[in-house]
Amino acid sequence: MFTESASATRPAGRFREWWSERARANRFNVTPIPFDELVDWRFDPETGNLAHSSGGFFTIEGLHVRSDYGPVREWSQPIINQAEIGILGILVKSFGGVPHCLMQAKMEPGNVNTLQLSPTVQATRSNYTRVHRGGRTRYLEYFAGPSRGRVLVDVLQSEQGSWFYRKRNRNMVVEVTGDVPPHEDFCWLPLREVLDLLHTDNLVNMDARTVLSCMPFAPPEADSGSRHAPVAFRRALARSLHRSAGALHDLGDVLSWFTEEKTRHEMTVRLIPAGRVAGWRRTAHEIARDDGRHFRVIAVNVEASSREVPSWRQPLLAPAGRGVIAFLAKSIEGVAHVLVHARVEPGFVDTVELGPTVQAIRENYAGLPEPRYLDYVLGADPARIRFDAYLSEEGGRFFDAQNRYVVIEVEDDFPVHCPPDYRWVTLGQLGALLRHGHYLNVQARSLVACLHSLW
Amino acid sequence: MFTESASATRPAGRFREWWSERARANRFNVTPIPFDELVDWRFDPETGNLAHSSGGFFTIEGLHVRSDYGPVREWSQPIINQAEIGILGILVKSFGGVPHCLMQAKMEPGNVNTLQLSPTVQATRSNYTRVHRGGRTRYLEYFAGPSRGRVLVDVLQSEQGSWFYRKRNRNMVVEVTGDVPPHEDFCWLPLREVLDLLHTDNLVNMDARTVLSCMPFAPPEADSGSRHAPVAFRRALARSLHRSAGALHDLGDVLSWFTEEKTRHEMTVRLIPAGRVAGWRRTAHEIARDDGRHFRVIAVNVEASSREVPSWRQPLLAPAGRGVIAFLAKSIEGVAHVLVHARVEPGFVDTVELGPTVQAIRENYAGLPEPRYLDYVLGADPARIRFDAYLSEEGGRFFDAQNRYVVIEVEDDFPVHCPPDYRWVTLGQLGALLRHGHYLNVQARSLVACLHSLW
Repeated sequence: MFTESASATRPAGRFREWWSERARANRFNVTPIPFDELVDWRFDPETGNLAHSSGGFFTIEGLHVRSDYGPVREWSQPIINQAEIGILGILVKSFGGVPHCLMQAKMEPGNVNTLQLSPTVQATRSNYTRVHRGGRTRYLEYFAGPSRGRVLVDVLQSEQGSWFYRKRNRNMVVEVTGDVPPHEDFCWLPLREVLDLLHTDNLVNMDARTVLSCMPFAPPEADSGSRHAPVAFRRALARSLHRSAGALHDLGDVLSWFTEEKTRHEMTVRLIPAGRVAGWRRTAHEIARDDGRHFRVIAVNVEASSREVPSWRQPLLAPAGRGVIAFLAKSIEGVAHVLVHARVEPGFVDTVELGPTVQAIRENYAGLPEPRYLDYVLGADPARIRFDAYLSEEGGRFFDAQNRYVVIEVEDDFPVHCPPDYRWVTLGQLGALLRHGHYLNVQARSLVACLHSLW
Repeated sequence: MFTESASATRPAGRFREWWSERARANRFNVTPIPFDELVDWRFDPETGNLAHSSGGFFTIEGLHVRSDYGPVREWSQPIINQAEIGILGILVKSFGGVPHCLMQAKMEPGNVNTLQLSPTVQATRSNYTRVHRGGRTRYLEYFAGPSRGRVLVDVLQSEQGSWFYRKRNRNMVVEVTGDVPPHEDFCWLPLREVLDLLHTDNLVNMDARTVLSCMPFAPPEADSGSRHAPVAFRRALARSLHRSAGALHDLGDVLSWFTEEKTRHEMTVRLIPAGRVAGWRRTAHEIARDDGRHFRVIAVNVEASSREVPSWRQPLLAPAGRGVIAFLAKSIEGVAHVLVHARVEPGFVDTVELGPTVQAIRENYAGLPEPRYLDYVLGADPARIRFDAYLSEEGGRFFDAQNRYVVIEVEDDFPVHCPPDYRWVTLGQLGALLRHGHYLNVQARSLVACLHSLW
């Protein structure tokens, strides 16, 4: 359990210096190309599915969905199908009693700023079994195999259920005590500083955020003096880290509600050939909906100097707009609670996971009922906003996928009573659920990491 | 948490009297019929899938499986697809400080003895939303809706992953304090007596067993005096109920191993039209493999007097033989551990769940390598067998599906070291995992209920 993180002072300037140097050292060019220049990838003439010639990486297929949830009850869409499970791992080591994380300056083709702060290891099995004939995955031996370190976190967690079919990644935190060979693309940063950096737009990548969210944090013994939130909110968050005390509903009730939500929704999801997805068109440059909503599938050419292979071409999914991902937070009897939403996404392994209070790209809802609480979030009093930054989704699969992540502390008279598919829960309860998969979606996990930056 | 159960004395004879009376009172005739007499069900001419005309209940479809696990790496098979989630609920009430369960004498067409001891509520959504236009589901209001009792257990658990496609049922235990209107098909039995009855062949049905396994048991304060096992084993089991003390591996290590096992196996599973399942043939009376292995799909006519509807016709899955389902148990430092196996079954929602040490129908392995530990179990010294009974799988879907459930306490010199896909775990650890779905398969859950009958 990490308790020291909150009180760790940060060494001035070390990160900025390393980061600027890394940005200067690496070249990275990403250019959209037509599909017919996508060497090593091809559309199957029968199904229309897009696959790599090795059979590895991922495929773009079709998904047909029928559900009893939301304003649209039946649709089909392209989906990324990636069966293999990758490792997202952060190596942790204590320096002078202060936990540090070995963070990586990693380029991904879809990142708006190319370089983002990433976990120590971020590798699909294709990466580390070298489907693409690149170099070995650095530091992998600390996470897999007989000589790995002490495992603090090791859990499969889902990724975007609207874009991926049943994707899970292995979120790991491993502690070491001995010397770790240095490398210029990696830097030991205090855990507290990594959390602080979440407040910088598009810096800490999605993979780092989900691993951070799974870290076991114990309530701090003293106030951190964090500059990010008023002291009353910080204290309410710190109390909220306790596993049991002060929760509006006990964990059994939360689990029972979650079971009820899964039972209430029936969703039939089937992979179909991409060529049979209705309402989407494939041109020389993209697969897109006629009305331009949701996302496009495009192809890019990538030239990089610091990746395992210096250049490659690949498809990316480009969302149609920027979303809002928000937790409403409320102190109940002095304990901070956040309002989670039981969300149905077609790519979830098990139908429903807990998402943020709001998770929506507004443009996709033109002509449809707006998602609940979206208006409230967009019109929130700036004085009540405790976290507010643009953060990117995984740049290895998504092109310029930025969302505005927000935590809003609601007014005292904001009702505790909520609709049946929402529940107020504590950080401690979310921590207990995060030991297991299938509970929190990736957007909610990102926001949990953001919450940990505040106390 | 139930602690009193172990020391509750049982009222003599009450169960037997009620049970004999119920068996006399109810008529039940099950007759195999050809598919073309299966009124209201039809094979889709294009796909060959077998479905009910209402669209409800379940369908028989095909499944194509490709995996990197086991002696057979690619196959297709028929599978039961039942998207809706049913409720399996036991109502609990304390009489004189002794917890009692409201158990039901319920007939199912596939049961060898027609009548088995079942949960208070055992109903698919089709049942209680009356797809088949029968009567209402008795006692459902205690489990669903605004006036339900205090929820002790509420979790979605998987069912047979070789026969069902991603089936889950909602396992519930609800406690009441007020009066409950009686009905002749239902009887309040002490929890301890229900557990004792597990030792009678084909009496406590699968649905009751899985709910019993999810009950939160606390370690008993005094020895129960149970006649089922020697005192040393009873004490080792009682110690094993503690959530943390004395486990060979702590829960974090068990979860990490489980994650590793999920990551190691890649399995691609797709529903296909039943007509495209290779190696299976449909005749007028059955869908079966050419070599007769695994199972057949048949149709039956059912005449009953005590069911919601007096007669109906339906398909059933008839397994090709009787299986052995066994836990090896071992005291390690005085704490009982059982050897769980990370099993891959194609119908699991998430690839791998923890199964018994042995789960196999021997006949299916002719010409293939035998499952590990099967020989050991079949040749075990009778003096070391702590549980041994034939128990039936769900008679609403399976025809004469009996398995021999066995718990064997291994010799002191039996190695603690085990193959990588096996782990020794305590009952307390299994209890912690049973708060969540996706961890224990239904056969392992049955054995957990059997273990609770022993301490």
